[in-house]
Amino acid sequence: MNIDCPLPADTGEIVRLGHGSGGELSQRLLRDCVFPHFNNSWIAQGHDSATLPPATGQVVFTTDSFVVTPLFFPGGDIGRLAVYGTVNDLAMSGARPLYLSCSLILEEGLPLDTLTRVMSSMGAAATRCGVQLVTGDTKVVERGKGDGIYINTAGIGVLHESLTIEPGQIRPGDVILLSGDIGRHGMAVMARREGLEFDSPLQSDCAPLHRPVQNLLDAGISIHCLRDLTRGGLATALVELAETAGREFLVREADIPTCDAVRGACEMLGLDPFYVANEGRFIAFVPADQVESALAVLESDPVTVGSRAIGTVTGGDRQQVILQNALGCERLLHRLPGEQLPRIC
Amino acid sequence: MNIDCPLPADTGEIVRLGHGSGGELSQRLLRDCVFPHFNNSWIAQGHDSATLPPATGQVVFTTDSFVVTPLFFPGGDIGRLAVYGTVNDLAMSGARPLYLSCSLILEEGLPLDTLTRVMSSMGAAATRCGVQLVTGDTKVVERGKGDGIYINTAGIGVLHESLTIEPGQIRPGDVILLSGDIGRHGMAVMARREGLEFDSPLQSDCAPLHRPVQNLLDAGISIHCLRDLTRGGLATALVELAETAGREFLVREADIPTCDAVRGACEMLGLDPFYVANEGRFIAFVPADQVESALAVLESDPVTVGSRAIGTVTGGDRQQVILQNALGCERLLHRLPGEQLPRIC
Repeated sequence: MNIDCPLPADTGEIVRLGHGSGGELSQRLLRDCVFPHFNNSWIAQGHDSATLPPATGQVVFTTDSFVVTPLFFPGGDIGRLAVYGTVNDLAMSGARPLYLSCSLILEEGLPLDTLTRVMSSMGAAATRCGVQLVTGDTKVVERGKGDGIYINTAGIGVLHESLTIEPGQIRPGDVILLSGDIGRHGMAVMARREGLEFDSPLQSDCAPLHRPVQNLLDAGISIHCLRDLTRGGLATALVELAETAGREFLVREADIPTCDAVRGACEMLGLDPFYVANEGRFIAFVPADQVESALAVLESDPVTVGSRAIGTVTGGDRQQVILQNALGCERLLHRLPGEQLPRIC
Repeated sequence: MNIDCPLPADTGEIVRLGHGSGGELSQRLLRDCVFPHFNNSWIAQGHDSATLPPATGQVVFTTDSFVVTPLFFPGGDIGRLAVYGTVNDLAMSGARPLYLSCSLILEEGLPLDTLTRVMSSMGAAATRCGVQLVTGDTKVVERGKGDGIYINTAGIGVLHESLTIEPGQIRPGDVILLSGDIGRHGMAVMARREGLEFDSPLQSDCAPLHRPVQNLLDAGISIHCLRDLTRGGLATALVELAETAGREFLVREADIPTCDAVRGACEMLGLDPFYVANEGRFIAFVPADQVESALAVLESDPVTVGSRAIGTVTGGDRQQVILQNALGCERLLHRLPGEQLPRIC
């Protein structure tokens, strides 16, 4: 029995449980909605795995699942996030991102048009980052057991063997650079979710970060550590690094940029922008004598315009982050105890 | 605010949205329920990615998401499946599995004890396979937006450069070996789901397949192609390979083993065992003059006891699978058109 002929085309159709069967419907879903956006020789081979060409350097491996709601938000969507998020995790070790996997958990009833839009966005994001989506998987769960689309991406990058960018490299005297204003992604998603409107449109900062990192390396900056500011925001990233590195940081509140729209939305919703998720911002720990050159490099890339030095690594042996306000008063920053913004990425 | 002191330990507790925040609760979840089962130096580093040591050979990359229900079934559970499934995808290219990622999508309300059981099972399965779980991610979705636990694993293996095991290598005259009886995994899950009981207990065949593959290679068998028989079962795997390879296969129904319990359950539920999922069975295409040695190798491993030659690649140029019954009558096998058993893996 071949069902290709009697059934109508999938236009206007929805995801059915049969699309997850591994059979004829699965094949058609991949052929119509997925493969056209990930056009490369690995996908064409129809394997369950991808054999990659040899690359020079150490292999770096990472993964993230994405469950953001809504699927589309100002400045991005779940597909773009799934590519940039994993590319950024690779970039934060100094690796050059090369290959991604893409695994979908679809909810029965999802319009195929929505899936196609998300896959098209993933394809465009992968092209922008110069990465190939080489292997994947699709599962379908019943209505009420998912939420439209969940996406997992795993990523492989290569790292020049001379590079060690990690918390253990953070040294007293290092300066902490922040790559732009904070809180845009979390507040753009929340504003869309809550139906808030602002005078100036609030867009997610969702962006790939591998290029600015590469530019810093190419300029000879001795990056000691990098961290992207995703869930938990700037504060959580700083606290985690202070603990992992066993160092004390002093950060100046007045030097941390936030835009009017983020401050307004945070006040309205009772949120602290220091804990709001970003998807295109990072902090970099660099030697004090390289701060000016590093900021000049970052300023030259649209993704990192507005970078600032926001603090330093002290000689203190407490694993903590001191936040100094404009009046010189100091308080300690802590991790977010529970949840501020669920389903933000 | 530090919440470590005032709150009780997580014993008897459930997953809350805060466990997905990236903050204090996330840390505690990982520390208590996840990390103890994946003990290695990468996990200890607390990075968002894992930098892997250099390995000889080509890198092979794959991914699968697991949404099986129920989470625990006779002969396995979602954690074991998530390790073996990805290990098997690597093994089917002839690669030696080395590293896995583990990304969790947890539903609010999941008992932490359940998570711990699943993670413990993943850890044991990884140890059995000699793979390391080196990087991961955890997201939490609201009640009614998931189903307990969904797990994604991506896998990295290495392949000896002289090996090319893929559909394009299938040749006329090749013999098709099947590594054991079929239908156990799908019927064990369905029996648990439907509350069926049998005289002889029906267990999933869920098992890692990298060792028998390695044994075949070590014995000098020129494996042309391998495919594990997951969703869609034996029939779907055969049809897909016939189409991808552009070859015609002739398969003898009487040589395909099924156990009494599987046949009984299939009859009761109106299912065809040829389309029922397996999680520890594969087919191998080998030259006719190596069949006896290959079967001897397979017979020596508990995972592949009961292997059989079930058919051949004909010289025909139609991309199809002919099933010959015990009386010599022939019919064509097709892919499963829709869904037979949803959420089977």
